[in-house]
Amino acid sequence: MNRFAVILAAGQGTRMKSKLYKVLHPVCGKPMVEHVIDHVSKLEMKKIVTIIGHGAEKVKQYLGSKCDYALQEEQLGTAHAVRQAEAILGKKSGTTLVICGDTPLITPDTMKALLEHHTNTNAKATILTAYSEDPTGYGRIIRNENGSVEKIVEHKDASALELTVKEINTGTYCFDNQSLFLALKEVKNDNVQGEFYLPDVIEILKNKGETISAYQTADMDETLGVNDRIALAQAENIMKHRINKDHMKNGVTIIDPESTYISAETVIGNDTTIYPGTVIKGKTVIGSDCIIGPNSEIDNCKIGERTVIRHSAAYDSEVGNDVNIGPFAHIRPQSTLHNEVKIGNFVEVKKSVLGTGSKVSHLSYIGDAEVGKDVNIGCGSITVNYDGEKKHLTKIEDGVFVGCNSNLVAPVTIGKNSFIAAGSTITENVPKSSLSIARARQTNKVGYMENKQDNK
Amino acid sequence: MNRFAVILAAGQGTRMKSKLYKVLHPVCGKPMVEHVIDHVSKLEMKKIVTIIGHGAEKVKQYLGSKCDYALQEEQLGTAHAVRQAEAILGKKSGTTLVICGDTPLITPDTMKALLEHHTNTNAKATILTAYSEDPTGYGRIIRNENGSVEKIVEHKDASALELTVKEINTGTYCFDNQSLFLALKEVKNDNVQGEFYLPDVIEILKNKGETISAYQTADMDETLGVNDRIALAQAENIMKHRINKDHMKNGVTIIDPESTYISAETVIGNDTTIYPGTVIKGKTVIGSDCIIGPNSEIDNCKIGERTVIRHSAAYDSEVGNDVNIGPFAHIRPQSTLHNEVKIGNFVEVKKSVLGTGSKVSHLSYIGDAEVGKDVNIGCGSITVNYDGEKKHLTKIEDGVFVGCNSNLVAPVTIGKNSFIAAGSTITENVPKSSLSIARARQTNKVGYMENKQDNK
Amino acid sequence: MNRFAVILAAGQGTRMKSKLYKVLHPVCGKPMVEHVIDHVSKLEMKKIVTIIGHGAEKVKQYLGSKCDYALQEEQLGTAHAVRQAEAILGKKSGTTLVICGDTPLITPDTMKALLEHHTNTNAKATILTAYSEDPTGYGRIIRNENGSVEKIVEHKDASALELTVKEINTGTYCFDNQSLFLALKEVKNDNVQGEFYLPDVIEILKNKGETISAYQTADMDETLGVNDRIALAQAENIMKHRINKDHMKNGVTIIDPESTYISAETVIGNDTTIYPGTVIKGKTVIGSDCIIGPNSEIDNCKIGERTVIRHSAAYDSEVGNDVNIGPFAHIRPQSTLHNEVKIGNFVEVKKSVLGTGSKVSHLSYIGDAEVGKDVNIGCGSITVNYDGEKKHLTKIEDGVFVGCNSNLVAPVTIGKNSFIAAGSTITENVPKSSLSIARARQTNKVGYMENKQDNK
Repeated sequence: MNRFAVILAAGQGTRMKSKLYKVLHPVCGKPMVEHVIDHVSKLEMKKIVTIIGHGAEKVKQYLGSKCDYALQEEQLGTAHAVRQAEAILGKKSGTTLVICGDTPLITPDTMKALLEHHTNTNAKATILTAYSEDPTGYGRIIRNENGSVEKIVEHKDASALELTVKEINTGTYCFDNQSLFLALKEVKNDNVQGEFYLPDVIEILKNKGETISAYQTADMDETLGVNDRIALAQAENIMKHRINKDHMKNGVTIIDPESTYISAETVIGNDTTIYPGTVIKGKTVIGSDCIIGPNSEIDNCKIGERTVIRHSAAYDSEVGNDVNIGPFAHIRPQSTLHNEVKIGNFVEVKKSVLGTGSKVSHLSYIGDAEVGKDVNIGCGSITVNYDGEKKHLTKIEDGVFVGCNSNLVAPVTIGKNSFIAAGSTITENVPKSSLSIARARQTNKVGYMENKQDNK
Repeated sequence: MNRFAVILAAGQGTRMKSKLYKVLHPVCGKPMVEHVIDHVSKLEMKKIVTIIGHGAEKVKQYLGSKCDYALQEEQLGTAHAVRQAEAILGKKSGTTLVICGDTPLITPDTMKALLEHHTNTNAKATILTAYSEDPTGYGRIIRNENGSVEKIVEHKDASALELTVKEINTGTYCFDNQSLFLALKEVKNDNVQGEFYLPDVIEILKNKGETISAYQTADMDETLGVNDRIALAQAENIMKHRINKDHMKNGVTIIDPESTYISAETVIGNDTTIYPGTVIKGKTVIGSDCIIGPNSEIDNCKIGERTVIRHSAAYDSEVGNDVNIGPFAHIRPQSTLHNEVKIGNFVEVKKSVLGTGSKVSHLSYIGDAEVGKDVNIGCGSITVNYDGEKKHLTKIEDGVFVGCNSNLVAPVTIGKNSFIAAGSTITENVPKSSLSIARARQTNKVGYMENKQDNK
Repeated sequence: MNRFAVILAAGQGTRMKSKLYKVLHPVCGKPMVEHVIDHVSKLEMKKIVTIIGHGAEKVKQYLGSKCDYALQEEQLGTAHAVRQAEAILGKKSGTTLVICGDTPLITPDTMKALLEHHTNTNAKATILTAYSEDPTGYGRIIRNENGSVEKIVEHKDASALELTVKEINTGTYCFDNQSLFLALKEVKNDNVQGEFYLPDVIEILKNKGETISAYQTADMDETLGVNDRIALAQAENIMKHRINKDHMKNGVTIIDPESTYISAETVIGNDTTIYPGTVIKGKTVIGSDCIIGPNSEIDNCKIGERTVIRHSAAYDSEVGNDVNIGPFAHIRPQSTLHNEVKIGNFVEVKKSVLGTGSKVSHLSYIGDAEVGKDVNIGCGSITVNYDGEKKHLTKIEDGVFVGCNSNLVAPVTIGKNSFIAAGSTITENVPKSSLSIARARQTNKVGYMENKQDNK
């Protein structure tokens, strides 16, 4: 059986009060519509068609070749939106899932169960429903004695008896594809809003004597549609807990799952502990036995085992095993820290490589540098990589000791095992095993401070 | 109709276990009693009288001319407290709202509805009530068939039937002003505590055949009275969510409203995103499209649009558009950062102005400085503003490049477009377009480290 | 009456997916089993026997002499586990509490009430029970008319009527010691798992005509057993709130008890305020009127009164009164900060003493140093304590002023009231009251930058 999906992503989302297209608002770091597409993609779809509205170039830009697109020029209702996919899907035989781009929480498992229920019940349409303790405002599912669907009643049109029904329409459906597109042609807009509504397809199919089915998901939370920032925060919270629960099941200790924010793409090894106030973004991989946080931010990094990152920020970098970072360190993009490196407090590393066992323990800036193994960079030392016009490279070979508050003015190479005296500004290359020094001699004017005091 | 308010703020609050007067404990950064006064002030009151106790100078100091004051020398009960306002209000005709200074969550809307209900029902007294699922301990509201109030029954005096009543007395009232002060004279203290209780006024008026009304607020949370630090944390939490909800409605993305702490006075533009662990205090204004946090603290700042502040603290300063601050930066009071300024990691700015496009990217201290446009301050550079006795000014004119680890010993001026060599300590003014240098030449003692090794 | 305790700590905890023994996983910074032992120890036990499994050396290492140990070589069930204590306890007369090492939330008060109930009811065995709204999966307590226990029915064996019982077995018991060990010999393993189950002891005693009693705790949360990381996070959350509530009752303001993480051993004075994102570990003592946080981490420190620590980390150190630390400071172990010290932003202190009133306001590293009173250490100044081989001591006597970006190359002593000029590298001792300077003179190459521009 061929499967297709239509994703409704043309809504403006005025209640978001945003310049950003509604479905592009991120949940746990990924646009809502991308969550939907990623979920749908797990179901072996022949084709996924995203319905986009005017000015939705950004949606297309963002999603790229993950799906096909159909443009809905005017916003004339959900049935009208689905109909825009006719040119792509209209003739095909199979089952079509229709889902909103603002429901990022519906899981692939639920979608799969919906599709299977559809097939098993020989239905032409199957509605994804949920049980709601407080169904006020939702369309109610009225079922026949055999369990198939008689009709969907909107809240405002429901009888007193119908209002007591707690099974509600979530707005996600699957259809026999050809029946869907035939029925869509019969949908009318003779209602107050003048819109073409997708649920009318259900009635049309019903009137033709077709079977309408309903699959009820256990978890009402899944079906949350995000229409404003309050719902956006709710979706973020639900997905956060879902992600954190998975990591905990896998053997990660999360001290406070309420205050730990991990992207859907992150992988974490067991026996790693995440302290609160930590934000992990992008496609980050963290090994086993690490300690991350508190109050750290890691974006798109690959981190080894037994590594500790406290009160620090790291972006787009690779970090080895047994590395110790922070507190209060900043690893900027394109950095590579090999095993056993130490990056201490108030240290910035940018676009640099540090070899195994090297230490930058305090108050330093290492930028555009190649640092060898077992190098010790003293407190306050700086790679002077910028001359006001260009960035230059600093090379520090294995075993070098750089004294405190030194400047290494790039381009410059410090040869293997050399020693830079504290307070030196190094502008020329240093041959290996040299002692390099560039500072003035000390003069003590003894008693000067007493005299100064006397002269007051 | 004249409106007056009496705010009961004389309670010691022994359960707070605090040296600070109870009503001065802050909720979302503002003393509880000030929340109450600010809310009451929105109702066009002719006069607001705050009843303060002995040693309450700090309450008066804090609130200043926002209200009048009456002193309750001894703590003889709530009726006694209100009576202290007699000299100021006793003779006036109008309606008087009586409210506790420890109920910071009652909204102006609720107060307004209470006052209007009072007027509409021609009552001499109207009680603010709430519906409580678990009313244990609260005074119950016993209503007549016509909906007016028959009596308030204290929990301990209630019959089995009365105990089933879930409408409770919140301790907020409005009264016909003259009736109130007449009735107060009749309140007796013949009870176990020997105190004069305000609810007795209700019975006195009732016995005179007056109508007593009750207005029930929908939200029990509003009526929380803060008597200990546990309730203080609850009030903080409720107000936090109320504030955050308003910002979200206005188009601000708050990733985790549970871990975001915004003062009541803060204004934030739409499409700004606030990451968790962020505390925003005082009268802060933040423009649109900013990214704030995670783990940042901003107090009383004015921030433009498209500005990013990560893992940083900023106090009492102005920040322009497209400014990038942090991670781990500290903006101290009286600083002004013009548009497109960059303040990078481990940088402190204090009482300084930075012109458009200037950059202080790493590990620097800029204090008591006037920095022009397009200035580049190298890593580790410092304005040496303090000579052990006084603070002095550093002027850095447009287009200057300050090399890394330099000291600019104030008072000093670096002329336009000059270049300070890395590692220099600058003690004298630098004319414009100069290269200024103050450092020793480098000497390489080649092989020194090998010999040193050999001699071991 | 002698009291004994047997703590079941031999379970592998495979669902934790951890290399760490289950009961050693920490809750609020302390291993679960240590919580249990610390709680039990408050009940004047004659002996506490912890049953440990193979490879449990770490449990023994960790708990040391806090208890006796018995080894359960094979995991043959809870009755088998308790029986391992026979050599130590078998012959003694008294009452024995049997409790799991993975239930860190059961309070000493509950244990005490259980023991007293046991004595008062003349029972041979008393079960700790709890009331559960949803008892699915738990063993139900079936009571006689007189309130004593008829039997425990496992969920799968319960009749329809028995399933309606909401009083459940928590797995904690107390027994008459000799009766316990006699009964244990009769327990059989003729069940599906082939294990010896402790609840069988209840039936055996019952069949002998003994009285079985049950004590129901009010708080189901207490009885949580930690079998996976999700339960571990729940236990952490419950204990966190319990600890925070106690501090709030004592007069500590905790802005957000949800995002404040305080160890069980921490003591905090009243009128101290803790801002969110703060983690306080170990045996920390904090005085009154302090401000701690936001986003700070304090481990095992002793902190005086009126001290402020913002956005900082402090470990194993002593901090006096009126000290101001941060934002973004790092106090490393073995540091002592006397009263009125200021440690400003981007400052690291390690294994150093700072005398009263001394200030290190910005971007400095003070390591292995003895700093006197009223010393001012300028921005960017560094104690150069490491020469690549050894750490050396820096002594800075009272009243010294160290200019910015200076290096004090240890071992070195700066005499009382001396002044180090900015940018100096000091390698030799400075006598008292001296002005010491070690830097090059400034040269201004006027017009150099213009010419450079022209030559392009």
